[in-house]
Amino acid sequence: MAQLESIKSQNEEYAKSFKHGDLSLPPSKKIAILACMDARLNVNDLLGLGIGEAHIIRNAGGIATEDAIRSLIISHELLGTEEFIVINHTDCGMLTFSDQDLQKKISEKYNTIASGIVFHSFDDLEENVKKQVDKIRNIPFLVDATSVSGFVYDVRTGRIKEIK
Amino acid sequence: MAQLESIKSQNEEYAKSFKHGDLSLPPSKKIAILACMDARLNVNDLLGLGIGEAHIIRNAGGIATEDAIRSLIISHELLGTEEFIVINHTDCGMLTFSDQDLQKKISEKYNTIASGIVFHSFDDLEENVKKQVDKIRNIPFLVDATSVSGFVYDVRTGRIKEIK
Repeated sequence: MAQLESIKSQNEEYAKSFKHGDLSLPPSKKIAILACMDARLNVNDLLGLGIGEAHIIRNAGGIATEDAIRSLIISHELLGTEEFIVINHTDCGMLTFSDQDLQKKISEKYNTIASGIVFHSFDDLEENVKKQVDKIRNIPFLVDATSVSGFVYDVRTGRIKEIK
Repeated sequence: MAQLESIKSQNEEYAKSFKHGDLSLPPSKKIAILACMDARLNVNDLLGLGIGEAHIIRNAGGIATEDAIRSLIISHELLGTEEFIVINHTDCGMLTFSDQDLQKKISEKYNTIASGIVFHSFDDLEENVKKQVDKIRNIPFLVDATSVSGFVYDVRTGRIKEIK
């Protein structure tokens, strides 16, 4: 509970000067982002996206998992997004372990079998971005998206690099 | 491609004044957030969390899916997060449709069977938060987390309300 009280009082301050209460549900810029959960990525800020402008989907690695695809279908079909952008980043935790190592580690630690958990670790960052972009492009329910692009964000410089 | 060029130039501006290049990989406040992808939630700002402080996992609905659990395990086991916070919000798109309706709609539109896709739509917001919190608390690999709490964010007022 170390941080929870602080978060609640921070939110009280946020609400005091809140001025976005009239925004509607669909993202105004018709963009959906799929990015890594990494704490060093402020996705809105680094892409210059304001509140209400884009859906932001995030998971470990910025992977186009079944769940990310579920979210993109809802985003596209029900809320009108048309441009999808995948963001991975340098110094990603997913480059530091293998699925098998983590499965073994937690199976032993918790005495519960974890061998069925696919963690989606990877060892080539740019290849990983390409793979996610290709996967999204080939989902039948997302084929009429205007564009699907992929970037690597450099956590040292704040700069994105497009991967083609 | 309507927005892509604008995003790239916004990022160039962001990088020019970037001052966070020395942050390390583990989230400094040991927090992981699971929130909805909704465009009106700026998760960092509404919780008063700065860059580098918390993992942020997001999907349609803020659901503790298998993929969100995968991300939480990586966050907790490899990167040391201890407090997990689920954020759902008022006026959520997930309250506006049923899985069956969306499956039918896209199956017909794309002439591809979508009946196997679980979209995780729901009809009771607070119950949904409780369900996700309970699910996370019962994952064997996450049982030693310090706390798992759940909130509803009000998109009209900017305020969070704890759900117990």
